Amino acid sequence: MVSALCNLSVSEAAALIAQGKLTALALAEACLAQVERREGAVQAWAHIDAEQVLAQARACDGAPPRGLVHGIPIGVKDIIDTADMPTEYGSPIYRGHRPRSDAACVAAWRAAGGIVMGKTETVEFAVRHATRTRNPHNLAHTPGGSSSGSAAAVADGMVPVALGTQTGGSTIRPAAYCGVVGYKPTHNVIARAGVRPVSDSLDSVGLIARTVRDVALTLAVLTDGTAPQLDVVSGRERRIGFYRTPFRDRLDAASASALEQLASALSRSGAKVEEAVMPPGFELAWNAQETINEYETYHTCAYEREFFPELLSAELQERLAKGARHTLEEYLTARSSIDRWRGTLNDAFSRYDVLLTPSAPGEAPVGLSETGDAVFNRVWNALQVPAATVPIGRGDKGLPIGAQIVGPFGGDARTLAFAELVHRTVAG
Amino acid sequence: MVSALCNLSVSEAAALIAQGKLTALALAEACLAQVERREGAVQAWAHIDAEQVLAQARACDGAPPRGLVHGIPIGVKDIIDTADMPTEYGSPIYRGHRPRSDAACVAAWRAAGGIVMGKTETVEFAVRHATRTRNPHNLAHTPGGSSSGSAAAVADGMVPVALGTQTGGSTIRPAAYCGVVGYKPTHNVIARAGVRPVSDSLDSVGLIARTVRDVALTLAVLTDGTAPQLDVVSGRERRIGFYRTPFRDRLDAASASALEQLASALSRSGAKVEEAVMPPGFELAWNAQETINEYETYHTCAYEREFFPELLSAELQERLAKGARHTLEEYLTARSSIDRWRGTLNDAFSRYDVLLTPSAPGEAPVGLSETGDAVFNRVWNALQVPAATVPIGRGDKGLPIGAQIVGPFGGDARTLAFAELVHRTVAG
Repeated sequence: MVSALCNLSVSEAAALIAQGKLTALALAEACLAQVERREGAVQAWAHIDAEQVLAQARACDGAPPRGLVHGIPIGVKDIIDTADMPTEYGSPIYRGHRPRSDAACVAAWRAAGGIVMGKTETVEFAVRHATRTRNPHNLAHTPGGSSSGSAAAVADGMVPVALGTQTGGSTIRPAAYCGVVGYKPTHNVIARAGVRPVSDSLDSVGLIARTVRDVALTLAVLTDGTAPQLDVVSGRERRIGFYRTPFRDRLDAASASALEQLASALSRSGAKVEEAVMPPGFELAWNAQETINEYETYHTCAYEREFFPELLSAELQERLAKGARHTLEEYLTARSSIDRWRGTLNDAFSRYDVLLTPSAPGEAPVGLSETGDAVFNRVWNALQVPAATVPIGRGDKGLPIGAQIVGPFGGDARTLAFAELVHRTVAG
Repeated sequence: MVSALCNLSVSEAAALIAQGKLTALALAEACLAQVERREGAVQAWAHIDAEQVLAQARACDGAPPRGLVHGIPIGVKDIIDTADMPTEYGSPIYRGHRPRSDAACVAAWRAAGGIVMGKTETVEFAVRHATRTRNPHNLAHTPGGSSSGSAAAVADGMVPVALGTQTGGSTIRPAAYCGVVGYKPTHNVIARAGVRPVSDSLDSVGLIARTVRDVALTLAVLTDGTAPQLDVVSGRERRIGFYRTPFRDRLDAASASALEQLASALSRSGAKVEEAVMPPGFELAWNAQETINEYETYHTCAYEREFFPELLSAELQERLAKGARHTLEEYLTARSSIDRWRGTLNDAFSRYDVLLTPSAPGEAPVGLSETGDAVFNRVWNALQVPAATVPIGRGDKGLPIGAQIVGPFGGDARTLAFAELVHRTVAG
């Protein structure tokens, strides 16, 4: 029973609580029991305090319903500020740091009746240096990063939904590696106040849950309160551009095969799936993204570079050294280049409703020292468009594989609707 | 002598300190003496502690030169985090708040040898509710806002340079009202880490100084260390689009006359000045900017709305109520609209090197309850392009009038070079 409760989706649990068939306390206890069973192995949490969670749940049960997620716990990546819990950004520089306020996304969740389960492990400043978190599907493998703990905790039934962030592939990739749904909205759709920045032009708050519907509901809570309709793509022509990207040679055979099978199944279900072709040179958008990311990360970390250089990981120092080499002029050239590629991509979306593309090169790599390759993710942040990943199968090692749906700028509802279509197609 | 020292530009003072002809301590004492004389009237500072300033100056004098601004004090808008000084964001909610770290721009200034003079008064969360600061040219008038204290302190010789921010017109307008140089770079050129956000898509760190050269030097300190060359516009054709905007009827007669005289003088000096014409509908970019600003400000303030609604000013509550009415779809439509107008503006810059346009509707309004109209500024933030204001004369009440130079996306060096051209043209 406890294990069943902790596997409820956000939507299911919220409905049961609203109907008086479930208490926030029982749900919190079920999630905490799962944490108790599994945290020693998975290590998804940077901070979790059972008494604090139970107190929030009891307060919910004693109060009138406040909003869409009354009594539902959320995991919060430890790059995101919380006023009542430590927030250490994955760095010893911020050991014991307690922010003055909640990030806007956390406050919006609480305002809708939600509770905060705890802080999930993050890669140092959400950049590169891996954390201790393990993939719940196989503890010898990385869960991906930088939203490592958020993806692992949701996948393992410790919490039904979690907040992440993405600058390159920090939400989509770990969600895919952990076999859950990940979503990165159109740039700036979710307010970033109180979220430690990496790269102002690329950062986005990301969402991780076990169903597309839960992602849509969470988006509603963090924006205008209206969840996108997920069935809008039925009953009309669905045009899907299958975009293998200039980096298709990095995709492993099992993932390539799973994507081809998905494309065929989508075709059979009535969608028009065709090879998406981008104009020559589009691969240069990846270079521009890299320049922007390196330049902005370097300048964003000015305080830590100046006052605590000895507390930065070797990996971060290496990344910062790359950023230090970019002149302002190089950076601005990269920004202008991305602007032009945004126009190119916008033109492509006159031919396709969405793009279907890999979420990651394959299954989660073995080992915990690296969090995997973001090559199939990072350009979409630069281009500011929404992206979602949905689990579509398993690879040769039995670990999850995802498919990524990328939509046009502002096409968040459409992107989630097609993600749901992928889910239904895979589920048969 | 003291008054002469406090009127040195950043460039002059840095050179004298580097040559051993001036100490950081003497400079700091001169600035503090000016604060002592004038702060009771002007009220530019939210926090200033003479001993703290002198200690930093003595440390500079006792250490080898570190960078471009060794020993130079800067004023920091109190919307920007400082680890060693309170940061209250102009709100009673954050009374006594002391951030864990410096904002990236503050740390970069310190890394170049600079010192922090104190925190300058800001409008509540840099949105609307006016602060107590007065215009040093006439204490009965507003200095403009939201970077009220930064503009007033620089104009009054209390500090040679200050950091501001701009979401609508919060740097350019107060700089113009106070008769100093203001600059808002291309979006995201100066890292925003540690700067309290208002609107993620519109916010920018802004710079206020008494010369264009000082703005260029400060930009260098906060970016790649290389100050833009300000004489690059000489010796080639200079094409200036005189853009009176769809809101020209809000410009007062004295400002209109001063701008026309400037345009004539620029023509006489060899520039090609012509009326800039934008395609029909360009005025809709202002509407889109307003929707984005209102939507994002509302969501950015989720924490304060949820936990401290009674401590928000009536003006802010009114603004937030407007934001609450925008749906996600309306917001995304506005974002897409701005994307298209960015393309329109980019096309215009094939005809003009820069645009010449008003900095404000006129002189600083009388009274302290309002900070003036940002109509001539706010669209440029949405369009992400650089803008600078330079003093060009005085209005009917004897208060300063500025001219605004707007450059293309990424054209920061060019914008500052033309701002310097305007300065030289006005200076004769």
